[in-house]
Amino acid sequence: LTAETRRSFLNEEEIIKLIWKVLSPHKPKKRKTTGDPFSDDVSWFPNSRKKLFVVAKTDMLVSDTDSPRQMTPSQISSKAIVAVVSDFAAKAVRPSFFMVSIAIPRRKSTYDYVLSLAKGIDRACKKYRLKLLSGDTSGSKGGIVIDVSAFGFSDKIVKRNTAKAGEIIGVTGRFGLTSSGLLMLLRNIKSKDKLFQRRAKRSVLQPEAKLSQGLRIGSYLTSSIDSSDGLALSLYRIAEASNVDMNLDSLPMAQGVKAFAKQNGLSEEDLVLFGGEEYELVVTFREKYAKILKRFGVITIGRTSKVKTEKPGVYLRSKLIPRRGWLHNR
Amino acid sequence: LTAETRRSFLNEEEIIKLIWKVLSPHKPKKRKTTGDPFSDDVSWFPNSRKKLFVVAKTDMLVSDTDSPRQMTPSQISSKAIVAVVSDFAAKAVRPSFFMVSIAIPRRKSTYDYVLSLAKGIDRACKKYRLKLLSGDTSGSKGGIVIDVSAFGFSDKIVKRNTAKAGEIIGVTGRFGLTSSGLLMLLRNIKSKDKLFQRRAKRSVLQPEAKLSQGLRIGSYLTSSIDSSDGLALSLYRIAEASNVDMNLDSLPMAQGVKAFAKQNGLSEEDLVLFGGEEYELVVTFREKYAKILKRFGVITIGRTSKVKTEKPGVYLRSKLIPRRGWLHNR
Repeated sequence: LTAETRRSFLNEEEIIKLIWKVLSPHKPKKRKTTGDPFSDDVSWFPNSRKKLFVVAKTDMLVSDTDSPRQMTPSQISSKAIVAVVSDFAAKAVRPSFFMVSIAIPRRKSTYDYVLSLAKGIDRACKKYRLKLLSGDTSGSKGGIVIDVSAFGFSDKIVKRNTAKAGEIIGVTGRFGLTSSGLLMLLRNIKSKDKLFQRRAKRSVLQPEAKLSQGLRIGSYLTSSIDSSDGLALSLYRIAEASNVDMNLDSLPMAQGVKAFAKQNGLSEEDLVLFGGEEYELVVTFREKYAKILKRFGVITIGRTSKVKTEKPGVYLRSKLIPRRGWLHNR
Repeated sequence: LTAETRRSFLNEEEIIKLIWKVLSPHKPKKRKTTGDPFSDDVSWFPNSRKKLFVVAKTDMLVSDTDSPRQMTPSQISSKAIVAVVSDFAAKAVRPSFFMVSIAIPRRKSTYDYVLSLAKGIDRACKKYRLKLLSGDTSGSKGGIVIDVSAFGFSDKIVKRNTAKAGEIIGVTGRFGLTSSGLLMLLRNIKSKDKLFQRRAKRSVLQPEAKLSQGLRIGSYLTSSIDSSDGLALSLYRIAEASNVDMNLDSLPMAQGVKAFAKQNGLSEEDLVLFGGEEYELVVTFREKYAKILKRFGVITIGRTSKVKTEKPGVYLRSKLIPRRGWLHNR
């Protein structure tokens, strides 16, 4: 190593890579039953001979500049939990306990504000039957940071690196609401359809995790991921982890998105593909389960295939979809 | 509630209290086998009919102003893990896995710095046989923040609220090194005894957790806590949680502390009682185990008794010891 390399600044990805490299002897060993816990929505580890111990963690930063100001404290805290529950939903594991750390700026830490934060946590706890294990709080110089770690135990996990060519691709819902909602909330873009406007905003402010659906369909899936980074990126993540192409023959577009796009000169495809914070599940499964999964509300959007070029891709009717997520906000 | 109350600012303790109050339905139920997981060194929860799932978490902030500048990055990251392992040691539970989150200021995130951080984690992993479950990193505007959560599974836990009157009080080591070391590192106070100076500084820069000792003695203890907040406060915590008085007949003073205090016009008692970041265990046990615990290195310092005044107290030869921790630094 040159002296220059050693003094060079690392970005977050490089920092993690370097730490993992040093620590590799302490990584859990790869096992047929567990795979690599470092490249999925959750981490896991064999807890005993039968059960896996499963952890997911999110760090939600709500700053005054990046987040819809319309979000109430209870919506903020609920959403932080939804994000973690969604990771568990995608893995078909029920989260049992969670811990929460809240960093809160002094100027926000009023009784009313904290009460609202607590109510949001309470709502999510009730909804997803979670138990609070412990929590702490600290001051913050920036915005509010809510750090949620959830834990569960399971016999198995639906991974993202286990899709095979020739399988069906499905989603648990239609897309485009959150990207539309974010444009309404952050850029004040309007819809003539007031019902759509309400639904789109609600999808951002009060998202829901598809936990019960994930638990119900898990045993039929070959791979799964949640769509919190947008439909396109989520499809890419399965494609790359599993080394398959993802070929969509249709876009799962939510009702009203087409009209909203037209009214505002936006691309409907972009709204569907490059949204984010959409907590639907993106899954693959064998053809023989198509019927039963349809009954559970899974919408078929395409098929996996062997990789056609030098690297795995996501295609809509043979056209390569760009590998990107939500651009307007981040 | 008045409008004024509702707009009033809450401190961290009040924030937690309010959140717990709202969330009380989701707290784990009190059970004879588990007690209250919200008032001990660790949190726990019955994982199955037999095993408890145990979690401890620390948040170590290393700012340029509050921490000894002499601390290397590898010492910082090691110490963050030692702090959590020490919580497990006090509960006689082996930590199995951990997660680490590192917030690191851009100006510090060089290859060399991160490599040193990673080596410190690696050293602690090896020493305490921990497996890294997952980790993440983020930017920081202040100092370095290392957030470590560790997990373990156990049949039982040695709590802090289970001491009874008439038991013996013991410690796993002698005290006063870290308070002396901190005065040397932060205020440049010197010792004529160079060996003592090295040992005192090392106790701050390279602390060790008494894990193997804690695991070995756990089954003989009636209560236990680690002394990371100082000997006096740790004794008070057991006294208050268990509703007993703690009566010391001697102070477990480390070699060299008396001379160091004398040379610098300091109180030797203060150095022993009001230190901190000392990762010894403070324990109680029945008289019949005194002999075996002595063999395991436990030093007897006094006896518990019924509470003599209106509230539990800690006494040295009948004189009440003030309820406080490390003052010079915090």
